Amino acid sequence: MNYNNIFSEIYKKIENTDSGKVASYIPELSNVNSTKFGVHLTTVTTKNFSFGDANEKFSIQSIAKVLALALAYNLENEKLWKRVGVEPSGTAFNSLFQLETDLGIPRNPLINAGALVLSDILISHLKKPKKEFIAFVRNISGISTIDYCPRIVASEKSTGYRNTALVNLMKSYGNIENEIEEVMDFYFNLCSIEMTCQELSKTFLFLADYGTSPFSKVKILSKSKSKRINAIMQLCGFYDEAGEFSFKVGLPGKSGVGGGIVAIYPNKYSIAVWSPKLNKRGNSYKGIKFLELFTTETQTSIF
Amino acid sequence: MNYNNIFSEIYKKIENTDSGKVASYIPELSNVNSTKFGVHLTTVTTKNFSFGDANEKFSIQSIAKVLALALAYNLENEKLWKRVGVEPSGTAFNSLFQLETDLGIPRNPLINAGALVLSDILISHLKKPKKEFIAFVRNISGISTIDYCPRIVASEKSTGYRNTALVNLMKSYGNIENEIEEVMDFYFNLCSIEMTCQELSKTFLFLADYGTSPFSKVKILSKSKSKRINAIMQLCGFYDEAGEFSFKVGLPGKSGVGGGIVAIYPNKYSIAVWSPKLNKRGNSYKGIKFLELFTTETQTSIF
Amino acid sequence: MNYNNIFSEIYKKIENTDSGKVASYIPELSNVNSTKFGVHLTTVTTKNFSFGDANEKFSIQSIAKVLALALAYNLENEKLWKRVGVEPSGTAFNSLFQLETDLGIPRNPLINAGALVLSDILISHLKKPKKEFIAFVRNISGISTIDYCPRIVASEKSTGYRNTALVNLMKSYGNIENEIEEVMDFYFNLCSIEMTCQELSKTFLFLADYGTSPFSKVKILSKSKSKRINAIMQLCGFYDEAGEFSFKVGLPGKSGVGGGIVAIYPNKYSIAVWSPKLNKRGNSYKGIKFLELFTTETQTSIF
Amino acid sequence: MNYNNIFSEIYKKIENTDSGKVASYIPELSNVNSTKFGVHLTTVTTKNFSFGDANEKFSIQSIAKVLALALAYNLENEKLWKRVGVEPSGTAFNSLFQLETDLGIPRNPLINAGALVLSDILISHLKKPKKEFIAFVRNISGISTIDYCPRIVASEKSTGYRNTALVNLMKSYGNIENEIEEVMDFYFNLCSIEMTCQELSKTFLFLADYGTSPFSKVKILSKSKSKRINAIMQLCGFYDEAGEFSFKVGLPGKSGVGGGIVAIYPNKYSIAVWSPKLNKRGNSYKGIKFLELFTTETQTSIF
Repeated sequence: MNYNNIFSEIYKKIENTDSGKVASYIPELSNVNSTKFGVHLTTVTTKNFSFGDANEKFSIQSIAKVLALALAYNLENEKLWKRVGVEPSGTAFNSLFQLETDLGIPRNPLINAGALVLSDILISHLKKPKKEFIAFVRNISGISTIDYCPRIVASEKSTGYRNTALVNLMKSYGNIENEIEEVMDFYFNLCSIEMTCQELSKTFLFLADYGTSPFSKVKILSKSKSKRINAIMQLCGFYDEAGEFSFKVGLPGKSGVGGGIVAIYPNKYSIAVWSPKLNKRGNSYKGIKFLELFTTETQTSIF
Repeated sequence: MNYNNIFSEIYKKIENTDSGKVASYIPELSNVNSTKFGVHLTTVTTKNFSFGDANEKFSIQSIAKVLALALAYNLENEKLWKRVGVEPSGTAFNSLFQLETDLGIPRNPLINAGALVLSDILISHLKKPKKEFIAFVRNISGISTIDYCPRIVASEKSTGYRNTALVNLMKSYGNIENEIEEVMDFYFNLCSIEMTCQELSKTFLFLADYGTSPFSKVKILSKSKSKRINAIMQLCGFYDEAGEFSFKVGLPGKSGVGGGIVAIYPNKYSIAVWSPKLNKRGNSYKGIKFLELFTTETQTSIF
Repeated sequence: MNYNNIFSEIYKKIENTDSGKVASYIPELSNVNSTKFGVHLTTVTTKNFSFGDANEKFSIQSIAKVLALALAYNLENEKLWKRVGVEPSGTAFNSLFQLETDLGIPRNPLINAGALVLSDILISHLKKPKKEFIAFVRNISGISTIDYCPRIVASEKSTGYRNTALVNLMKSYGNIENEIEEVMDFYFNLCSIEMTCQELSKTFLFLADYGTSPFSKVKILSKSKSKRINAIMQLCGFYDEAGEFSFKVGLPGKSGVGGGIVAIYPNKYSIAVWSPKLNKRGNSYKGIKFLELFTTETQTSIF
Repeated sequence: MNYNNIFSEIYKKIENTDSGKVASYIPELSNVNSTKFGVHLTTVTTKNFSFGDANEKFSIQSIAKVLALALAYNLENEKLWKRVGVEPSGTAFNSLFQLETDLGIPRNPLINAGALVLSDILISHLKKPKKEFIAFVRNISGISTIDYCPRIVASEKSTGYRNTALVNLMKSYGNIENEIEEVMDFYFNLCSIEMTCQELSKTFLFLADYGTSPFSKVKILSKSKSKRINAIMQLCGFYDEAGEFSFKVGLPGKSGVGGGIVAIYPNKYSIAVWSPKLNKRGNSYKGIKFLELFTTETQTSIF
């Protein structure tokens, strides 16, 4: 199937919708051009389809949590689930409350508290955590230029009080092993990674091919672990909009406040969309809309 | 594929695990023989595979909520979502709390509060609600003997204070139109429906075939609605164990406190399992274990 | 001291403030003339001081909970505290949530859930609960014409869904012994009692005189119990405005959504104020303002 | 009245009760001799009554929050209440949850979050915050040797993750002006102050004499502010045991996890008790028991 025509058809339908606004909680994110729009699809047979600003870098933010999960899951295996759950969190607003009632165990690895635990685990395992993690990401994608963005890191650090609250609360329950400063530094770097839609789509393709990258043939994860990460994305990938995304798009995926979304159609493709304006729940407005129309049009859904 | 051998192989592995206990919150449910075990799988090509007590009736309880959802969704279309959400609820224990913070709008149609709203909607639409609803269920399944169980209804009514609290709270927010007694009566009847594993599997087969029953060729739901009900089951079908079920079993499904579970593999089959002893979260202990081993063995998962 | 001049002086200061609005949640309450204002003070030496509409009947609503507490405390003694606590509730909005986390034990006897438990206790003890309770109130006050208001009862019953939710939730935890209908009927009657400011002030005077009515010399409560009821009013008498009232007025007291407030200055006097318009937290706007200025002017405060 | 005999009489009654345990959350506190018991009462006429270990220093911990409140209230006047409330918090367990729903405004100044805001305010006002604050405390009490305990500060800092979580959360809402490290340092010093029962009783006597120290005749606070601080202690001085303390003891007071309690009988006396073993809610077990029997025996209660 040639997706290029479908991309431009769908884009016409949503081009002039203009809801939502660019993330402003850190200064660096608010500087982005809000009219940008890109999409890139990569099939497990390594075909590529692009549209719009698909080759422009953006901050993938929380999408990177899935990559931290992949590495931590490989290192810890099923022990991982003693320190973080696999259940949806209900609402964003509950996060600190839930962490308190659950005695410092985050609901799942894709909320902030969960990714902070992943960061702590990676620091405990790796000798040079930041260096080894970005090497892991480059290895998955086969793209050696993917990197952290120091400006974003600096910007996050200047306003990351809420995340610092989360990590201190977990430390009080004994669920953080390393120094708080080191955990925060890793976490802010993790969230600062920049990719283009094309890079993002290629990087996540191993999750559409049961753990093995179709490009390099390198096995990143076992089949079972790969499926389980998809299951976690399905239930927890969009905060309190996970149900809505499942309902309308029907694929496992993950969003970031930079306006990016990646979604996986197992055994077929991965797709990355980018549009900076966010809806009220912090997910890309046009990104979700585009994916909804795309999966309807192409009749692709895991359900 | 012949599933009969797989069924007996897997059963041997879980036969002697004996965790959990039979639901006791209503007297009638506690009378069931806790050693019963049955499973039935029906393919979209109408092949059938059975094991154990697959032809014995049991109380399907909350599984019936999915059928109420199918009918209500057909009657209300997308207006339905003004009165009930599609998001996972986070935790069982939160239910009344969430209903209060969400001003009487239940998180999703598969928690008790949500099914009470479905009941209210069906009463508003149907002239003889209980009679017409059971006719709908018989029509889906092609089995005319499926019915409510008056003993279960009476037993539920004698102890249903918590559900009465939910419906009164929603009425105080204006999200219940009909008389409380009528809503409770319908709801308790809904939860009292009895089926065998075979009947349950056949009844739910339309959700594996995009809304159309492969037996009767009757179209119950549109393809889009059918997929969306699967998506809701995936995220909300097992209360605060939805993530765990997705993670381990990888199929959309729904459980009931009678010990039944139904799961859907889109485009392939529906499967019903029954084992009365429940785990701490109120889902069939052996039922979940069986499905986990079965989907692993047969490599079936939507992810 | 002659309080009459002080009353008129203070009234001039607040006369033209016009914040708040009359309770509208039940039709009957919204029919009252919102410009009414009355105050009556009775000293333990049985002197009386009146101002404004002090001889006009109004619905005392939740103020009656204190009288139900006095009788229930006498009947149950310290066993009472197994079924209801003595701690402030934090916020109104938490009520159902707290009842759930506290397994059906209300925080204190002056929130709705607590007064429903008091109603249940009185029904268990009394042969003709409504008749005997109003006789108790008449005996305390020496005023034989105090009575329930059937119109208010009927109005409450038509909209009391939230209270019905509370009582059903407590029944599910085993903290309600009697039939729900009977408990609700008693509770709605309790809240429907009508008094004038003069009657209200006289009725509560026993709490300013350590449990004994200065008029009749009848001992209603022991000294210890009388002080403890004052302590409960101090901490729990104004829902989520208890701190503010303590802070500004400095006396134990209780408010009702009919716009009445009664306050106790131990060993000196009781005072009743009535002004129907309520502030955002459901307490009489001018009533609180008047008492704040009055206790400042007369330098009366328990602190 | 000679209280010395009453002290020894009451002590005999509680001497052999041995419930509760010494605070262990910071190493330094757990080293104290758990059998210590002291009490000291000072009247507004400057008479002194002592019993037991009344001249031994202990860590007053949270009791010092009241002194921080006194100074902050003087510096900010009624503006103070824009940054912290005056309502009881409901439960200890709710603290982070409430701070989240209340957008970073602590319920009252005597919970940890509230005292962290007080610390922030004092830092903003004072040039040498720690030095000027301890000078204020010495001035109130007329005792120049009262001081911080560096060992306790160091011990708190090594385990203060939960408090760091609170201050970061408030900073994320804009309710902390200064650097987090400076706020934490001041707060830990505040909680480390050591006094004997005699010193504690004398220090708090100004709150029993409407804001003026009977020893030095120095006016610390206005009469109105002094009463309001008593009101806040009454409602918020014992976390989720405030109601119980009011109910049984009937005086405004404040406890600390070092096992100290101070209580105020307005216009008469202040009393300090110390016994290190704490009940389940974190208040001195024998301290509360002693005060309950003492106020019953001497018939002193504000109610």
